[in-house]
Amino acid sequence: MGSGKRDWFEISEKMHRFYRGKIEVVPKVPIESIDDFSVWYSPGVAEPCRRIYSGGEDLSFEYTWRWNVVAVVSDGSRVLGLGDIGATASLPVMEGKALLFKYLGGVDAIPMVIDEKDPGRFIYIVKALQHSFGGINLEDIESPKCFYILEKLQEELEIPVWHDDQQGTALVTLAALINALKIVGKKIEDVKIVLFGVGASNISIYRYLKIAGANPRNIIAIDSKGPLYRGRRDLEDMRRENPWKYRVAIETNPEEVKEVPKAFESADVVIAASRPGPGIIKKEWIKSMNRDSIVFALSNPIPEIWPWEAKEVGVKIVATGRSDFPNQINNSLGFPAVFRGVLTVRAKKMSDEMFLAAAYAIARYTEETGLHEERIIASMTETELYVREALAVAEKAIEIGYARRKLSRSELETEIRELVEKPKKYMSIAIKNNLIQKPRDV
Amino acid sequence: MGSGKRDWFEISEKMHRFYRGKIEVVPKVPIESIDDFSVWYSPGVAEPCRRIYSGGEDLSFEYTWRWNVVAVVSDGSRVLGLGDIGATASLPVMEGKALLFKYLGGVDAIPMVIDEKDPGRFIYIVKALQHSFGGINLEDIESPKCFYILEKLQEELEIPVWHDDQQGTALVTLAALINALKIVGKKIEDVKIVLFGVGASNISIYRYLKIAGANPRNIIAIDSKGPLYRGRRDLEDMRRENPWKYRVAIETNPEEVKEVPKAFESADVVIAASRPGPGIIKKEWIKSMNRDSIVFALSNPIPEIWPWEAKEVGVKIVATGRSDFPNQINNSLGFPAVFRGVLTVRAKKMSDEMFLAAAYAIARYTEETGLHEERIIASMTETELYVREALAVAEKAIEIGYARRKLSRSELETEIRELVEKPKKYMSIAIKNNLIQKPRDV
Repeated sequence: MGSGKRDWFEISEKMHRFYRGKIEVVPKVPIESIDDFSVWYSPGVAEPCRRIYSGGEDLSFEYTWRWNVVAVVSDGSRVLGLGDIGATASLPVMEGKALLFKYLGGVDAIPMVIDEKDPGRFIYIVKALQHSFGGINLEDIESPKCFYILEKLQEELEIPVWHDDQQGTALVTLAALINALKIVGKKIEDVKIVLFGVGASNISIYRYLKIAGANPRNIIAIDSKGPLYRGRRDLEDMRRENPWKYRVAIETNPEEVKEVPKAFESADVVIAASRPGPGIIKKEWIKSMNRDSIVFALSNPIPEIWPWEAKEVGVKIVATGRSDFPNQINNSLGFPAVFRGVLTVRAKKMSDEMFLAAAYAIARYTEETGLHEERIIASMTETELYVREALAVAEKAIEIGYARRKLSRSELETEIRELVEKPKKYMSIAIKNNLIQKPRDV
Repeated sequence: MGSGKRDWFEISEKMHRFYRGKIEVVPKVPIESIDDFSVWYSPGVAEPCRRIYSGGEDLSFEYTWRWNVVAVVSDGSRVLGLGDIGATASLPVMEGKALLFKYLGGVDAIPMVIDEKDPGRFIYIVKALQHSFGGINLEDIESPKCFYILEKLQEELEIPVWHDDQQGTALVTLAALINALKIVGKKIEDVKIVLFGVGASNISIYRYLKIAGANPRNIIAIDSKGPLYRGRRDLEDMRRENPWKYRVAIETNPEEVKEVPKAFESADVVIAASRPGPGIIKKEWIKSMNRDSIVFALSNPIPEIWPWEAKEVGVKIVATGRSDFPNQINNSLGFPAVFRGVLTVRAKKMSDEMFLAAAYAIARYTEETGLHEERIIASMTETELYVREALAVAEKAIEIGYARRKLSRSELETEIRELVEKPKKYMSIAIKNNLIQKPRDV
């Protein structure tokens, strides 16, 4: 990967400099003469304003682009592998995310970095801005404040809020795990799980594993000091500084296993989201796992253990975060479709039920289109996955009463499919008509 | 206008409901395979982030869309003729403005309503968001707090800030006045001016009239209680509540004229920005003006006096805010080009010099393409006006050291022209390829 990675960086720097931005805003309405602005601006625009004012907030989803807009919000406090580089330097990532939102999910997304590190004030700002958007995607915010920010915003906002580093990773991981367990014929209720790394991803994964049926008493979570357990010396500090991690510590590992190698013994599943490898997870540990074991080594760019090393010592199913190995756990399979679903029905919240519906939809679609050890999860090129996943989220939102707008399944499907397919159509028209320039020599 | 206006409202309501949004976000870079996301997103995107982090904030203008993005920001406290309808209900106006920004100026603009009425906190929020944008366009914020918000943001932000209800109107009014004075052969230094209405527009117009050479001692400003003057009974209240208006009161009307009809006597120019007419300005008042008089009656939808009434009593040149009369004072001749100019050179500020350069460019372009009594200002359909105006702003920014980027005149012109023309090209491609739908029966 060494020189290959350096190449990505070089190419990316040049391409970013050449294009100066990855997205742009364009009209969505026909303008054939200047008179059209009497409809879209003054005086005509007063009427939709008046209707929203008298008819209520929800009408803003009918008269403006709000229904389809997500803000990609960050304070730049934990960006990729770069750490706390601040708001401005994180803008290229947020803009890239906005590009993925549109291309994969048909979602209009706006990169928005906020120069405010205090969580309370950060929440206040996002809350004051919510009326411009149909959803909020939080990104690259450091742990543990990201937990607090997500919870508070989910509570206080009247639009769905999602933190992709928590929920995005958890969603795709859970879908992959559901399918991996199908292959090995084990049940989520029964399996012994090691969570290696206890940051934003694994704390969120833990939360959703429980919701999906996993038993906390079968889970051991390991941080840089070893396994978490009720009696660990730093428990009181943890309670104060990171109550979300504390909860993991008191709910799991009832036998108070204290050694890392011991934690791996007869485990069925390892989910590692710690730090780039290789060699972070030792072959010997993996070797002591139960038969038909499952290892997800999610760190990027180098997984905690190389897939072939895991396979050598008997692991049945390996997944990583990399596109050049089988079974890529890729957030891009989640957020574009999840937001496509919530936006299409103008959902007020993103609930756990909707989350599970998305996870099962990903798993089911993958199963129906060919499930095997090297394909426990579909890939980004499969447009149909996004349609199915968005549809599952939208239907669940309607079912539980979180949708502002109710449509039949077939109406939903038609609308979602059109929105997911349109950006690909746009791309080919834009390239053909020279709206998007191909670089001659970058 | 009565039934005509009702039609605009009806059509606008239907069209807004049909299109559900006037703008959208699209990719600006080619995506031909999923691998391209390794350049535009992880892992490649880390490199532009790193460069901005180590090389400084200004590089964000080179590696992201920031250089071309303006936030159209409002608290919804004074929207069109609707008053304080709040953040959400004002969203259709902000989105309409974003549409104008792109179509006329090639500027990517984002509607952003902020649910915060306190000016201090409003300023704090905009400041925390500035790193996502290349400029801020304030809109529909009530007076007098709009003056404070504009001044403070201009002081504290490192990108240009513009309040279109103040400066936009002032810019186009000043350009039109410069040309009207050419026709009647009077000098701005000498003319006696009545400002009818002392709200955001006329207070800003007053400021820029002075900068352009008008003598405050030749000006009388009139509010709903009559002419302002140093000795007026409410002067102390004014000083406390609206220091911007207070300044007008103490600088103008040295003879302490107290009666409205008297203020009009032998005036050369009337600029009315008060409330919708007709009959707000009386024919008798106008009749007493100097010969070769100029009347701008800017209220919408009905001017303070009908143009034919003013003409009947001898006014030489009349302008209004209406597109169906000659000489439309239209903000859309200003903001798209001003921002096109500042964004192209990544300006740090919008200065008075740059403002004047824009005003003279509008006036000069109009003169060169045919100046007469019924055409003191060009119209929105004249693309070349936008190029010339943006160029003047950009060159002035470079000259006075406010530009982050320096280009030659011909480089600037090429770039600006391309950006101004592209949205029109986009529109015809989008309609032809069915990316933008023509309503069958709305």
